[in-house]
Amino acid sequence: MASSRKLSSSDDYAEILNRYDTWLFDCDGVIWSGDDKIAGAGEAVDLLRRQGKRVLFVTNNASRSRKMLKKKFDRLGISASEDEIVSSAFAAAGYLKDVLKFPADRKVYVMGMEGIEAELDAVGILHCGGTSPEDNQFLPANDYSPLQSEGAIDPSVGAVLCGFDMHMNYAKLCKAFKHLTREGAQGPVLAGEQGGGCHFLLTNDDKVVPALGEPWPGSGSLATPLIAATKREPIIVGKPHAPMLDMVKSLYQIDEKRSIFVGDNLHTDILFAKDGNIDSLLVLTGVTTERDCQEEGIWPSYIIQGISALTSVERGHEAASGSGDQAARLASL
Amino acid sequence: MASSRKLSSSDDYAEILNRYDTWLFDCDGVIWSGDDKIAGAGEAVDLLRRQGKRVLFVTNNASRSRKMLKKKFDRLGISASEDEIVSSAFAAAGYLKDVLKFPADRKVYVMGMEGIEAELDAVGILHCGGTSPEDNQFLPANDYSPLQSEGAIDPSVGAVLCGFDMHMNYAKLCKAFKHLTREGAQGPVLAGEQGGGCHFLLTNDDKVVPALGEPWPGSGSLATPLIAATKREPIIVGKPHAPMLDMVKSLYQIDEKRSIFVGDNLHTDILFAKDGNIDSLLVLTGVTTERDCQEEGIWPSYIIQGISALTSVERGHEAASGSGDQAARLASL
Repeated sequence: MASSRKLSSSDDYAEILNRYDTWLFDCDGVIWSGDDKIAGAGEAVDLLRRQGKRVLFVTNNASRSRKMLKKKFDRLGISASEDEIVSSAFAAAGYLKDVLKFPADRKVYVMGMEGIEAELDAVGILHCGGTSPEDNQFLPANDYSPLQSEGAIDPSVGAVLCGFDMHMNYAKLCKAFKHLTREGAQGPVLAGEQGGGCHFLLTNDDKVVPALGEPWPGSGSLATPLIAATKREPIIVGKPHAPMLDMVKSLYQIDEKRSIFVGDNLHTDILFAKDGNIDSLLVLTGVTTERDCQEEGIWPSYIIQGISALTSVERGHEAASGSGDQAARLASL
Repeated sequence: MASSRKLSSSDDYAEILNRYDTWLFDCDGVIWSGDDKIAGAGEAVDLLRRQGKRVLFVTNNASRSRKMLKKKFDRLGISASEDEIVSSAFAAAGYLKDVLKFPADRKVYVMGMEGIEAELDAVGILHCGGTSPEDNQFLPANDYSPLQSEGAIDPSVGAVLCGFDMHMNYAKLCKAFKHLTREGAQGPVLAGEQGGGCHFLLTNDDKVVPALGEPWPGSGSLATPLIAATKREPIIVGKPHAPMLDMVKSLYQIDEKRSIFVGDNLHTDILFAKDGNIDSLLVLTGVTTERDCQEEGIWPSYIIQGISALTSVERGHEAASGSGDQAARLASL
């Protein structure tokens, strides 16, 4: 019988607070909604800290560095340290370093913004492209010669890393294309060599992203020209793909059995957690309703109205939004 | 039995010259190879003209206007008038005008270059985007506000037309995305209205294009972010898709039975002609060998070494490249 346990009383909340030591949070729809804090979210995070829990914020955002992302937490009054923020740019840099053992003398060609560059810098990986002035200007119309000039295609590049890029342009696309299609590009990336293998990574595959309350084309869309032209498939790091959770497990040494993922999206959060063998808690403050679980046949371990409900544990009474049943179960499919 | 007739004697050439009045030519691999003329191609075109044939040059190039494309013919010494050049930009403008009956008071949002704008101008269709200065600058990083300013998303736009664009950028992509996803965007495009329906067209779907002797990402790749983000499929105008040949037939009133398409690519030329019920002549001066016909199971009506062979009709002797057999047939599959 497929179902989720609906949490609605302070006893329920106390039970899961006792059961999990590490709380992994999706941000949009859980902690905030666009530029507004979700009521009571900061208090819930504070409660977890008082109870000695480890808190991590897991976001697909790759355009901003963790330092920049922390400013959003600060602005909304939610306690968070840079170390607790796991962005897809951070995970991609870690994946290159720890999983792909990217050589210290090779460069990553960045089709993306400052957030990616900052995370590569943080782990000591060389890079080019990105926000560099020479790759952020338009080519003359119908003139490929700047791409054929000496040094335009740097042979020390051993990976192309794509992410959200408001300065995407044809010159960057052409350079990335050349790196990914050169002779031997699908072979190993070796230290001390030029050319040869070139990894292909994408921070996250979100086809649209919300901003200012509206959808806009996201990094999953921006990477498609390179995929179409090269006929190569990138390693996708961000949620709901495995590398993101693998990096969290490896970097933070979390205990899977005592960790829970809290999110509002059945695919990028709940299936992501399930695929990673981590329990999940669906909040109803974002894009998903209880009915969606039935319609999609995707069941989180638990459902809660919103993370603010957790604070009723300390207030000693039941959350206003709860049904009053101690363990109401949704009908099974 | 699938097979093609191999033409190799002056009698063969005389026969097909007699059989077809309209000669449709692919350019790259037939008339020229990159920036170099294919030997004897100009003479073959001149021969057709002396024999009173109609000659048309059918190219997927959409970045240059027909006036600009004619300059390439001039530079290589191949006789051609603007009226004989059918580009995918020209066909797209004709398709909007004649097939979609695009209203005179609505605009086309162009994700492309001067070639598209010139062809829209030529048929009196209003347009924006394209090479306009405001859409050819980078947005400030992480700042969508220029896209939300008054008038940024013009409600008089009733179609998005994508083509090759060396100045592709995120602002253009966002604007096109908004036009294609607004309420009612998949409905009819009506004169005298704002908003509502918005057509989606792509000049040609070539994922890579050759330039300076190398492959580069083409318009078929550049359109993929918009397709991914909007989940809409464009009408593809260029070869091997039907609208291109439909426009040729309708604009030039050609007789299908007395027309032949000459090309070097089994898919974009030979299948394109077959699908349009037009006989085809494969030249071996481009990307295809006779063996490819067998391997791919795609058979043109005729095969010839190169179009220069046709001139042997007037020289009165067999082409040096011919086998001598009057009607050698390739083995059937």
